[in-house]
Amino acid sequence: MSDSNSTAWLAAGVRHELFMRVLPALRHDMAGPLSVARMGATVLKRYIAAQPFDPALCLKRMEQTDEQLNQLLLSIRTLSRWDVESTDRVIPTPALHATLHLARPMLDLQGIVLETTEVDAPASWPQLQPARALYMVLGVLSQLQDSGQGPRSITVVPEGDTLRLSMQAVTPTLPGDHQPAQRHMRVDAQALQWLADDLRWPIEISADTVVLGRPDEQ
Amino acid sequence: MSDSNSTAWLAAGVRHELFMRVLPALRHDMAGPLSVARMGATVLKRYIAAQPFDPALCLKRMEQTDEQLNQLLLSIRTLSRWDVESTDRVIPTPALHATLHLARPMLDLQGIVLETTEVDAPASWPQLQPARALYMVLGVLSQLQDSGQGPRSITVVPEGDTLRLSMQAVTPTLPGDHQPAQRHMRVDAQALQWLADDLRWPIEISADTVVLGRPDEQ
Repeated sequence: MSDSNSTAWLAAGVRHELFMRVLPALRHDMAGPLSVARMGATVLKRYIAAQPFDPALCLKRMEQTDEQLNQLLLSIRTLSRWDVESTDRVIPTPALHATLHLARPMLDLQGIVLETTEVDAPASWPQLQPARALYMVLGVLSQLQDSGQGPRSITVVPEGDTLRLSMQAVTPTLPGDHQPAQRHMRVDAQALQWLADDLRWPIEISADTVVLGRPDEQ
Repeated sequence: MSDSNSTAWLAAGVRHELFMRVLPALRHDMAGPLSVARMGATVLKRYIAAQPFDPALCLKRMEQTDEQLNQLLLSIRTLSRWDVESTDRVIPTPALHATLHLARPMLDLQGIVLETTEVDAPASWPQLQPARALYMVLGVLSQLQDSGQGPRSITVVPEGDTLRLSMQAVTPTLPGDHQPAQRHMRVDAQALQWLADDLRWPIEISADTVVLGRPDEQ
């Protein structure tokens, strides 16, 4: 096998692990609206059987269900964003917010507080392929998560052309006997470097801090 | 990096490529029932505004929508089957059918006819982790797909303890200028071997035929 080819497979392996870590959050984002829509259907059945019959009330309830189903359709469609062969491009800041939103449950489970959820990406960053933004930021968060243990917090701060993600130990607020399930694959600095090289994204990895440079346009 | 660790990442990379190849089919399986449910809602709105009002007709229509939403919920839940760290176990034959169903659109796009869709897995095979069955069979089909070109067909036949998947060239039935989109990563014999070793599944790979042995219990 050629070396460059094996590097591509290693990076794909890291992407796979990252995707599997947020798959429960993705499923939850789809199951949520569906659950609300099904409850709405139960209520609607009662309205339909009621005396006197109130069509306006029924139609109002149905509009709420429509909204849930539209949101679900959007979630299903955006699953394609996880493929690095997608030709879509997205604006960096919303992509960053979406990634932080997805990562939060994964970090919560490990006792890590994500302090930042609404940070802007550096203004100089170009539009990005969605998968590239998703995997790169998730990769950094996973590497920080896997590089320590115990209660910690992560902050995300733009600095000039870069985005700095750093981790701090915090005082436990809960009894310390919580032992979260560990995954088999650890995203260490080497794995994160494979991912960044494959996504052509400049990166500096040090203890407790990772700095993402400006990604090129591609 | 340790060698065993890099082998695990390579296998995860192959799993990622396989998942991305069937992601459009997974999305289609979710978007389909949702689309039917939304059309049902449009019809229901008309029923609710109709004179005279027929509650039985409305409730019947809603039952059909409920069925679609239940099917969708099942699709969302079964997304967790793609994680090799799942502790579920499934019976091999239905898992094989589900995998062949998902693989068909991918093969169709490459002009490959999947001759077999309802074959039984060998009776001696144990219950399997769902992800293991999904990735192993998809891996074989992808390797066969990527190892040739032009119109072909694939048959899947159980033989004793093994499952034999083989590919034959067929006469084109359509003008031969169809050039399907090629993915960047090719699943070659080496990639398939990484996958099989990681899933601890005995495999024999030769030109146009792959034989899967009996997987151990795990």
